[in-house]
Amino acid sequence: MKPTDYFSVKFENENLIFLDQTKLPLEEIYVKTDSYERIAEAIERLEIRGAPLIGIAAAYALALSLKNIQSDNEKVFDLSYNRLARTRPTAVNLFRALDDLKIEFEKLSDKKNSYEILLSKAKEIHKKDEEYCLKIGRNGLAPFKQKSNVLTHCNTGKLATGGIGTAFGIIKTAFENGLVSHVYADETRPLLQGLRLTAFELEKNVIPFTLQTDSSAAELMKQGKVDLVITGADRIALNGDSANKIGTYNLAILANYHNIPFYIAAPSTTIDRSIATGEEIVIEYRNKKELFYIGETLITPEHNDAFTPSFDVTPAHLISGIITEEGLFTFPYNFIR
Amino acid sequence: MKPTDYFSVKFENENLIFLDQTKLPLEEIYVKTDSYERIAEAIERLEIRGAPLIGIAAAYALALSLKNIQSDNEKVFDLSYNRLARTRPTAVNLFRALDDLKIEFEKLSDKKNSYEILLSKAKEIHKKDEEYCLKIGRNGLAPFKQKSNVLTHCNTGKLATGGIGTAFGIIKTAFENGLVSHVYADETRPLLQGLRLTAFELEKNVIPFTLQTDSSAAELMKQGKVDLVITGADRIALNGDSANKIGTYNLAILANYHNIPFYIAAPSTTIDRSIATGEEIVIEYRNKKELFYIGETLITPEHNDAFTPSFDVTPAHLISGIITEEGLFTFPYNFIR
Repeated sequence: MKPTDYFSVKFENENLIFLDQTKLPLEEIYVKTDSYERIAEAIERLEIRGAPLIGIAAAYALALSLKNIQSDNEKVFDLSYNRLARTRPTAVNLFRALDDLKIEFEKLSDKKNSYEILLSKAKEIHKKDEEYCLKIGRNGLAPFKQKSNVLTHCNTGKLATGGIGTAFGIIKTAFENGLVSHVYADETRPLLQGLRLTAFELEKNVIPFTLQTDSSAAELMKQGKVDLVITGADRIALNGDSANKIGTYNLAILANYHNIPFYIAAPSTTIDRSIATGEEIVIEYRNKKELFYIGETLITPEHNDAFTPSFDVTPAHLISGIITEEGLFTFPYNFIR
Repeated sequence: MKPTDYFSVKFENENLIFLDQTKLPLEEIYVKTDSYERIAEAIERLEIRGAPLIGIAAAYALALSLKNIQSDNEKVFDLSYNRLARTRPTAVNLFRALDDLKIEFEKLSDKKNSYEILLSKAKEIHKKDEEYCLKIGRNGLAPFKQKSNVLTHCNTGKLATGGIGTAFGIIKTAFENGLVSHVYADETRPLLQGLRLTAFELEKNVIPFTLQTDSSAAELMKQGKVDLVITGADRIALNGDSANKIGTYNLAILANYHNIPFYIAAPSTTIDRSIATGEEIVIEYRNKKELFYIGETLITPEHNDAFTPSFDVTPAHLISGIITEEGLFTFPYNFIR
C-alpha cells in the first residue's frame, strides 16, 4: 500500500478547504468556504484543531473576511478579529497569528486592498509552520539509534499543524528513513485524539501501528515493546518543564521507570521565555462533559464531579531531549543556539 | 444525605434478584428470575460481573436449575453445570463455586431433593464472601494514619462481590470510621467501570468523590490530592506480584514515584499458591471492539490493530501492603499466618 494524500487546510481559488476533523476517522469530509464566520465556527466545533493549525486557519479567515470589501475595512477587520479571537481561549498561536495580521493591516496606508496583503501574510504563516515541521522531523532523527518502536500520545501530525507535524512529523520522517518499525498510539482520553486522529494519519502514511488505552502504556513498556516515546508540547518553560496533553507526565514517569528515552517535539515558538519553570504554567480545566459524554452517549450522571485538567506539566529532568526546528536540546535545558 | 441501599444479587422467595449492571449508573433495574438460563445470560452479558459475584450468581443458578425437578436430576445438573461453566472463561471463582456444588451433589444418595441442598451451599458461598469482605474492610483500616484522600481503579464494591467489596469495602469502612475525606475514581478504560459502577456505589454510600481519566492520575498525585491508592486483584502470586485490571501497574509506578503508599485488597482465595511469581500469570487479551466501540458508537475503524490486555501485573516491590481477610501483609510477602 502507498501513502494516501490528505490535508488539514489548503488555500485554493480564493477559498479555504479544510478537513472536518470531528468526522474522522470514519468519514473524510473536506469543506470549502470563503466565509470567515464558517471558519470561526469550525475552530469552535473542533472541526479544525491543534494549536498551530488554529493559528493558520484563523489567519486565512481574517484575510477572507476582507475579500470583496472595499469600504469600512477597519470596521470589518475589527469585527472579524474579535470574532476569531473569541473562538478558543488558550491557543497562543491563535492570538499570535491574528496579531501578525493586525500589524500588517495597521501598516497599510490604503486599507482598500487589504485582502491581498493579509492573505499573503496568512500564507507566509502557513509556509513557515510547514518548514518548521520539516526541520523538526529532520532534527528528530538523532534519538533513533536503530529501527525502533515508538509510543506517542494525542495528535501532533498534519491535523494539528500546517505541515507534517511535530512529534508525528518526526515519526513520519524516521519511518521514511527506515528507522521506525511500529508505532503505538495512546487513545488519549477524554477526546480520543489517538483513536480518531493519529490512527487516521498513521493509516494514511501506511505506518504500521497499534492502538491502546492510555493506562496500558506501562504494560506495553514492561513487555519491551517501546524503544522510545515522543510527544508534542503546548508550552515549554525556560528550564525545559513542558506542558502537554493530559497523560504526558504520566508517560514520562513510566518511561523513566522502564529506562526508555522520552522526547518532546515542538516549534521554538512553544518555548515561553517569560516563564522560568513549569510551576508558572497555568493548567486549563475543561468541561466535565468531555469526560462524561462519548459522542452522544452519557456514561455517568452529569451532576458527578470530575478532575479535568486539559494538560499536565512534565518536569525537565524526566525529558531526554526537546526537539525544535533549531535542533535537539538536552537536560539541563538552555535554548540558546 | 443518607446512604441508599442497593444490592447486586439477593435470593428471595425462591428467586434470584439481580441488579442489571449494564444499565448503571443511569438506570437502576433489578431483575427477578428463577431461570438458570437467564442468570447464565446475565453473566455473559455482564449484567452480573466481578469475579466473586459471578461465582455466587452461578451457584444460585445451578441450584435453581433443579428447582421442581424430581427425575433425571443428574442429567439436568450436568446440563446446567456445563452451560454455566461456558459463560465466562477466566473467572476462577466461577469454576470454584460450580465445583463446590458438584461435590455436594455427588455426595447425595437421593438426588431428588438436591435443590434444597445446593441452594443451601450457594447461600453458604454467598455468606462466606460477605464475611471475607467485612474482614478485609476492617483489616484495611491499618494503612489510614489520618483522614485521607484515596485513589482507586476499576470497581471492587458490592457490584463485584457478595459483600461490601474488597478495595471498595476498605474505602467504605474507612469512610464510616471518619478516615476518608475524598475518593478519586479512575474511569478505567476500556469498559469504564469507574465512571459507571464505582461512581454509582460511591454516590449510594454518600462518599464524596471525583472522577478522572486514567491518565490524569499522575497530575492528581503531583497536586498532592492522593494520600493512598487501593485497588483489588484478580490473582496474586506467592511472592506478592499481583495481577489486576489493566492500568493498576501504571498506578503503582506513579504512586511509587510520588511516594504515595499503594495497597492491594483481595480475599486470600485470590492468592494462587501454585505460582511463585507474577511472570507465571497468563495475561488475557480482550476483543478490540471493547476499545473501539463505546456504547454503540464506533470510534476508529474496526480493521485497526489494538493492544488489549485485560490486566497487568504489579511487581511486589511496588506494593506497600496486601490486605486479605486474614490480615495486612507487607513486602517481602509470606502469606502464612
